[in-house]
Amino acid sequence: MDDSLERIASNKSFGGWHTRYRHHSNSLGCEMVFAIYIPPQAAAAPVPVLYWLSGLTCTDENFMHKAGAQRLAAELGIAIVAPDTSPRGPEVPGDPDGGWDFGHGAGFYLNATQAPWATHYRMYDYVTQELPALVEAHFPVTAARAISGHSMGGHGALVCALRNPGRYASVSAFSPICAPSDCPWGHKAFSRYLGEDREAWREWDASVLIGAAGETLPMLIDQGDEDAFLDEQLHPERLRAAAEAAGYPMTLRMQAGYDHSYFFIASFIDDHLRHHARALLP
Amino acid sequence: MDDSLERIASNKSFGGWHTRYRHHSNSLGCEMVFAIYIPPQAAAAPVPVLYWLSGLTCTDENFMHKAGAQRLAAELGIAIVAPDTSPRGPEVPGDPDGGWDFGHGAGFYLNATQAPWATHYRMYDYVTQELPALVEAHFPVTAARAISGHSMGGHGALVCALRNPGRYASVSAFSPICAPSDCPWGHKAFSRYLGEDREAWREWDASVLIGAAGETLPMLIDQGDEDAFLDEQLHPERLRAAAEAAGYPMTLRMQAGYDHSYFFIASFIDDHLRHHARALLP
Repeated sequence: MDDSLERIASNKSFGGWHTRYRHHSNSLGCEMVFAIYIPPQAAAAPVPVLYWLSGLTCTDENFMHKAGAQRLAAELGIAIVAPDTSPRGPEVPGDPDGGWDFGHGAGFYLNATQAPWATHYRMYDYVTQELPALVEAHFPVTAARAISGHSMGGHGALVCALRNPGRYASVSAFSPICAPSDCPWGHKAFSRYLGEDREAWREWDASVLIGAAGETLPMLIDQGDEDAFLDEQLHPERLRAAAEAAGYPMTLRMQAGYDHSYFFIASFIDDHLRHHARALLP
Repeated sequence: MDDSLERIASNKSFGGWHTRYRHHSNSLGCEMVFAIYIPPQAAAAPVPVLYWLSGLTCTDENFMHKAGAQRLAAELGIAIVAPDTSPRGPEVPGDPDGGWDFGHGAGFYLNATQAPWATHYRMYDYVTQELPALVEAHFPVTAARAISGHSMGGHGALVCALRNPGRYASVSAFSPICAPSDCPWGHKAFSRYLGEDREAWREWDASVLIGAAGETLPMLIDQGDEDAFLDEQLHPERLRAAAEAAGYPMTLRMQAGYDHSYFFIASFIDDHLRHHARALLP
């Protein structure tokens, strides 16, 4: 595997470093950019890593610029890795309809099985295997991992955690797409990436997966009750019902007045960092 | 004066509200957008206001999205107002050369005297008079004001404070253009907005104004020593020398390893908020 990294930007931040790298992804068959925040503690000893999966249309930059996570990450001693939200580049087919909710910026953190998507759209392999291997080979981090994300990336965080017992110490999400098999965003993505057979969708749906989870992780979900996407796309009540039926302990907080934006994420990111710190740090 | 405000966006943030408004500016002769963060304490009693002036190419959004100021502002009980960085719109002439360092996004917080700029480019009147009057008429705020900014906006904050004894309780700046009469950005802007007579430039240059300040305010400046603009454009050493010559107490901190970005601002915004809180709050 060619795991060379090209550093494309670097900024000192709260005594640590935010850096962006470009590399060739073997999983995705294209060049990818990711960002990593390394807290100051990493100069003395390796630190655990929180993986952040962003939502539709985002890149590695949205979270790093807008969430305000570096302040507390630098205090706690946690690295943060933010991948892009899909494969990119002229060789990667996008939405044939020109939409923003499929294709580029909308990889849904799954492995596509249908042509022409299956060639590049393997974000699940990328974020759960290739990227952690790369990060753990190149940076002063331990193999202690947590995962979080927003909206499509909240779905991704839940699915990555639920499908990989032992791989993550904790999981959290903001405004996740909780039942993607049964909402317009998920239906559009799954029917193309995975095909029309809904049976194949079940292994990428957190509200299904939580019923047969191989472990229980600390799970925190925040959802704004003024989120414009709540009723049609997100369905946290289905995940809650599935978790209750399965006896999976989960904290779902409905936050009064908050919307789907990074203003919401920033308001509660410290709670999520502390949630992960309890699982990641001795 | 028509001081009606059109609310164009609103997001709950740390228990308070970030809101953007459009209004007609009489000073500028065009429609303007500004953002205001109202902390939760304002529901009980009026709060003081920090005015934030952004740098070249910015709008009201950069600071509100990237600085991470709302967390501590919500804890301290300080409102933040972020205006745009110039007059805007098809009726407002921009840089004839198509540059990003003059015209739209580059108002330099002064009152232009030269045609065709003098008609609209009156950001000084806007940020020191019109906008505070509007804010104090429409929102639950007191008349206690502080001012801060970044780069061109750091210049603006220093000049607005130094020219207006009694109007602000404190001033601070990140990476300010400290001697605009004598750097490429300032030379380009001043020679057009103010004309070629350099005598007229002196009343918009903090390193000159500090020598004849009518009061001394608490003044905090942070400057990254890896800032790519430091040597050519910013010249904090000239402001320091002028302050020392005038006996004006000033804290100038050179921050090792930091650049000109919002990653730098976010890393130290809490210090600036506490600096202003000491002056603004009982």
